[in-house]
Amino acid sequence: MAIAARIKESMEKSSWVRKMFEAGAEMKMRFGAENVFDFSIGNPNVPPPADFQKALESMTALNVPNKHGYMPNAGYPDVRAKVASFISDEQGVTLGAESVIMTCGAGGGLNVALKTILNPGDKVLVNTPYFVEYGFYVDNHGGVLEPVPCGENFDLDLEALASRIDEKTAAVIINSPNNPSGKIYDKATIKSLGELLERESKRIGRTIYLLSDEPYRKIVFDGVDVPGIFEYYRNSMIVTSYSKDLSLPGERIGWLAVNPQADDFADIIAGAVLCNRILGYVNAPGIMQRVVGELQGRSVDIDLYEKKRDLLSEGLKDIGYDFLLPKGTFYLFPKAPGGDDLKVVEILRDEKILGVPGRGFGMPGYFRLSFCVDDSVIINSLPAFRRAMDRF
Amino acid sequence: MAIAARIKESMEKSSWVRKMFEAGAEMKMRFGAENVFDFSIGNPNVPPPADFQKALESMTALNVPNKHGYMPNAGYPDVRAKVASFISDEQGVTLGAESVIMTCGAGGGLNVALKTILNPGDKVLVNTPYFVEYGFYVDNHGGVLEPVPCGENFDLDLEALASRIDEKTAAVIINSPNNPSGKIYDKATIKSLGELLERESKRIGRTIYLLSDEPYRKIVFDGVDVPGIFEYYRNSMIVTSYSKDLSLPGERIGWLAVNPQADDFADIIAGAVLCNRILGYVNAPGIMQRVVGELQGRSVDIDLYEKKRDLLSEGLKDIGYDFLLPKGTFYLFPKAPGGDDLKVVEILRDEKILGVPGRGFGMPGYFRLSFCVDDSVIINSLPAFRRAMDRF
Repeated sequence: MAIAARIKESMEKSSWVRKMFEAGAEMKMRFGAENVFDFSIGNPNVPPPADFQKALESMTALNVPNKHGYMPNAGYPDVRAKVASFISDEQGVTLGAESVIMTCGAGGGLNVALKTILNPGDKVLVNTPYFVEYGFYVDNHGGVLEPVPCGENFDLDLEALASRIDEKTAAVIINSPNNPSGKIYDKATIKSLGELLERESKRIGRTIYLLSDEPYRKIVFDGVDVPGIFEYYRNSMIVTSYSKDLSLPGERIGWLAVNPQADDFADIIAGAVLCNRILGYVNAPGIMQRVVGELQGRSVDIDLYEKKRDLLSEGLKDIGYDFLLPKGTFYLFPKAPGGDDLKVVEILRDEKILGVPGRGFGMPGYFRLSFCVDDSVIINSLPAFRRAMDRF
Repeated sequence: MAIAARIKESMEKSSWVRKMFEAGAEMKMRFGAENVFDFSIGNPNVPPPADFQKALESMTALNVPNKHGYMPNAGYPDVRAKVASFISDEQGVTLGAESVIMTCGAGGGLNVALKTILNPGDKVLVNTPYFVEYGFYVDNHGGVLEPVPCGENFDLDLEALASRIDEKTAAVIINSPNNPSGKIYDKATIKSLGELLERESKRIGRTIYLLSDEPYRKIVFDGVDVPGIFEYYRNSMIVTSYSKDLSLPGERIGWLAVNPQADDFADIIAGAVLCNRILGYVNAPGIMQRVVGELQGRSVDIDLYEKKRDLLSEGLKDIGYDFLLPKGTFYLFPKAPGGDDLKVVEILRDEKILGVPGRGFGMPGYFRLSFCVDDSVIINSLPAFRRAMDRF
């Protein structure tokens, strides 16, 4: 046995997003990039805001001792303070710097949070559709991810969630705005979720944590509000990154924030700092910590994404595709015409359109299109979407 | 149960380096930083070379599409190619870009390598003294680190290693130049280690990997050479970072290289790329990948460290401390006068000197001093070292 059996198995499963990305690279080589309509991957194509470049230049010029050296594993204290102050405004719950740990993106933050709380065999619940990497992240730390079918219109199904909670349940993950559905859970839903977790934690005699993965919080349309979670459930953590809202996914910068009202706040923070260290992250990349410290509340021009959403959704609606208009993210998640998402993705691929089957998000019967692409890709793809529709 | 039992336990053990770091912070508050001689942590105090600043400015100014976006999980292909070419020269074995995965420092690289190869319950051997984080890294992926006492003068004890190898043995970690002893294993030792692993792999019927952790490879003195490992054992990987040789530990940039002659090369690379992704690193920080791509073979001014080594070692030798002169790293690892490393560290602390007990590296009876400090700290500490010696 050469490599770990579990890794060999994971390699064979791999991820649908990655498979489509690879198929796409091959198609682009064969047909020319301009002839392939690649809606497969969520790689932001809107440039970072001008303030980002200014902050990067200023941090590059910064002259302080030990500039690129080790800092506390949780990050630069002043950056943590700035982030905490921003979160306090956003959540309506006052956080100090000690509530925030700077992380290598949201992926890093989720791994840190999960390692901090999971005992071997613990369950983590998530409503479908969900970001497939959650399964790996939970498995990394000896847990088991249990997907629970969502309610109507991709809403949380609180009854279904409650019915799956038992004494092995350590956490529930939510992701709003949701990748891939674009769904935003409203205030009443979050409030009910908080009550449910409070009640169920008591019933099973252990704290069930709410992990809110929020990389798309700022990418919202039509003036919709994303309710905070800290106000509605005290045993909660938020993880996010600046990957999407500042277009920096390659720089791996984000944070984990622990609700200051959490029952075991001090232990969770100390545990998470330890996990950030021993998972080999050690700390979030230094220069990007300093840069994002200067950019609290900033984001790319969201109107550009809203325009892309409208362009794609109006085009596809005219052709006859069936979907819920996303209120956030840069994804559209239509029903697979005929119901078979693999077949739909295959036919689309024949038309040189790359999408991801819904089963890659635990939800067969749908497919995901990332509209963080040039407007021209959207416009030029519509005839191909029409031809595909004729073939379903 | 609020946080994971294993994390609670790890928090209580914590790391000696970290404990001393915290004690130091408290002492500096109390007595003033200039009155505390902090030899506890390996945070490089020599600034990055001027070329680094130039490269950082140039990459900050770089204007390319998708500049901070996702790239392949293994890193930018052109950076991987540059690193591969540099390693080829250094190791005398030709590597292509596909052999190299850019990682979040050596800590990231070790976690990726270990997750790729470890099955539950597998053993990883390491000779003492060793970097204590190895134990966490192995444990993260379900393995067990088994420290094996070193030979004379901190050399590898090959017989002792061989005697511990059984069918659960997945890997051996070496770290040369060694933290904390400063030992560099010579060519004959590496060659014998390669033969041993070849023979033992056959005997137990599985591949034993050699993981060489090399962050101090460029920090060597007296013109000593650090032999490569790829030439001497094919089932091998190197992990390293630019933390020490470019003074960038806060930026988390390094790489993992797999020997192109490894039996299961393609699987290991594909597995490691997957692990880099699913451990939540996703990719090494983008801008620092580009920066180090420009700086292959560069390092800080090593003469500065050599001077510090001489200053500290000559001073301590005069006082009567007993140690092997380190040929690399920025650590001195003297015998604890009287034999009790905890007591020695305590008495030193009374004198406002911070060091780390050898048991923090699996080797009681010694203590570590990091000499990556200002020359003035070394010079001013000598009277305190003398007073301490009188008290042992």
